[in-house]
Amino acid sequence: MSAQKTILTGDRPTGPLHLGHYVGSLLNRVELQKSYKQFVMLADIQALTDNVDNPQKIRTNVCEVVLDYLAVGIDPSKTTIFLQSMIPEIAELATLYLNFVTLSRLKRNPTVKTEIQQKGYGDAVTVGFLTYPVHQAADITIFKGNLVPVGEDQLPMIEQTNEIVRAFNRTYNTNVLVEAEALIPRFARLPGIDGKAKMGKSLGNAIFLSDSADVLSKKVMQMYTDPDHVRVEDPGKIEGNTVFTYLDVFGTDIITIAQMKEQYQKGGLGDVKVKRYLAEVLNTLLEPLRQRRAEYAKDPQAVMQIIRTGTEHAREVAAHTMMEVRQAIGLNYW
Amino acid sequence: MSAQKTILTGDRPTGPLHLGHYVGSLLNRVELQKSYKQFVMLADIQALTDNVDNPQKIRTNVCEVVLDYLAVGIDPSKTTIFLQSMIPEIAELATLYLNFVTLSRLKRNPTVKTEIQQKGYGDAVTVGFLTYPVHQAADITIFKGNLVPVGEDQLPMIEQTNEIVRAFNRTYNTNVLVEAEALIPRFARLPGIDGKAKMGKSLGNAIFLSDSADVLSKKVMQMYTDPDHVRVEDPGKIEGNTVFTYLDVFGTDIITIAQMKEQYQKGGLGDVKVKRYLAEVLNTLLEPLRQRRAEYAKDPQAVMQIIRTGTEHAREVAAHTMMEVRQAIGLNYW
Repeated sequence: MSAQKTILTGDRPTGPLHLGHYVGSLLNRVELQKSYKQFVMLADIQALTDNVDNPQKIRTNVCEVVLDYLAVGIDPSKTTIFLQSMIPEIAELATLYLNFVTLSRLKRNPTVKTEIQQKGYGDAVTVGFLTYPVHQAADITIFKGNLVPVGEDQLPMIEQTNEIVRAFNRTYNTNVLVEAEALIPRFARLPGIDGKAKMGKSLGNAIFLSDSADVLSKKVMQMYTDPDHVRVEDPGKIEGNTVFTYLDVFGTDIITIAQMKEQYQKGGLGDVKVKRYLAEVLNTLLEPLRQRRAEYAKDPQAVMQIIRTGTEHAREVAAHTMMEVRQAIGLNYW
Repeated sequence: MSAQKTILTGDRPTGPLHLGHYVGSLLNRVELQKSYKQFVMLADIQALTDNVDNPQKIRTNVCEVVLDYLAVGIDPSKTTIFLQSMIPEIAELATLYLNFVTLSRLKRNPTVKTEIQQKGYGDAVTVGFLTYPVHQAADITIFKGNLVPVGEDQLPMIEQTNEIVRAFNRTYNTNVLVEAEALIPRFARLPGIDGKAKMGKSLGNAIFLSDSADVLSKKVMQMYTDPDHVRVEDPGKIEGNTVFTYLDVFGTDIITIAQMKEQYQKGGLGDVKVKRYLAEVLNTLLEPLRQRRAEYAKDPQAVMQIIRTGTEHAREVAAHTMMEVRQAIGLNYW
């Protein structure tokens, strides 16, 4: 066992990253890269499973997502940023894993089950989509990821991965694969600006890290508050009031925020005033990120070179694991 | 369209090849290699789908099968013999294809349906086994196989392949993938020595190309004939009499065989006599093959080198197709 644990994480490059990513995963990564070997995967092959007819969207967003990474302070000298599709070893390993998973097991996977229902696939679900937990197991294990930051809803994915790991190691009497552990982020989900539980790239309720100060301010002005708080003098509710939820997450001046909450609940503090304050808080937070982003965006070739360098490193690691896997099975012909 | 068509065929290396392979596929390949680009795949990854816990069997049989190829006259200077597991591009392409096939479509595949029933898998079928037609589509199309020699029962596999080809080409507005055509062999299935419809590696009813003259003669002596033909003087039946079926296939002296049939039907010709004649016919046929096999078997390294050279060539072709596929999707990042 190597002293330094390995983290495998990543994003589907289907859109720019937003404040939900920022508090839910990006900030963690900036911290984690200090103490762990961290691999961050641009999951373009996984993104294809439900964007098969729109690869251009994925292609375009690869660079956007990496700009977001660099903007928040993910450091390519500490974190390996790589493209899933450029590591053929992942597909090789996933193909081998398919023999360790039954159809009924896959259909029981709660995460996949829910997603199939949400997307209304029914029996028309593609095997690409259905088998994505198996491919995810390959993503994780080919890098010998010990720690995988996931939300509670993704725990079945880790369980599926570890079942495969145990079955493989037992079948081939080896310990080449290592089990993964979920790293549940301390921070819960950030709601969308519409107050819905989840901020989503494609839900029209996101504040993107790449939004300008103007766009951000406009979005904050549209935010969901207390629908019963009609006039300034009315008492308002804090609970479920997205603006205050955001202030709790992003605000630094705790005393001011506590005073605003008190006044809001009593009556006499208008939404517009609180929103203006939140917009200022967020713009102050994001301004240095925007500047870093703009700096990197000037040289797309250099960004691509960062991805390429990371991918080359990731591929070496993946090829090494795949070599060990081949040896364990006896597929190492020469 | 290139002038010379490409054939993709192969075997699962799970046992030595037998007379059923000889008349059903091997002789054809020796002919076809004269006029076509022929790729013969050692389908070790596919073999793993139902031998996941016995990779050693596959490993051992890779060399045996190639010795059989060389013994019958498959010429490595004309035919590309390659190992499936050493072409990672196949797994990459198959992974992309999984997005073009629905679960219900796969479950409807008659070949897979029958096999799942025969093997008694039920819902415990692995996704590796269930998705093998998709992987087969990748095997065929990565080499731009125009012609695929298959039995009637395998026609649904070609249909599945062509559905994927059309869906892929339509989705990405390309013609990089080519449809495949089934090449139904002229010769029907050779029965096993027990008279059952199919000679099978694992059915205990096969005469292997690598059987010695003695073993072969003993197997012929056990062959199923006419169960009502008890005494030499009894009239016997030709129809369903495996010994005569074999003589029709392998015999060259048509007149002698016709005379034997007449005498057998009238009565007065014993099974042992016919069997001795068949054993002689088969040993005469196989003797030069055995000699060639023994010659090649002396130098296993040279055999491995043949596989390696073939695999290197196959990989170049596969990598080229995969590069075109990436371009079509837009996954060609650098």
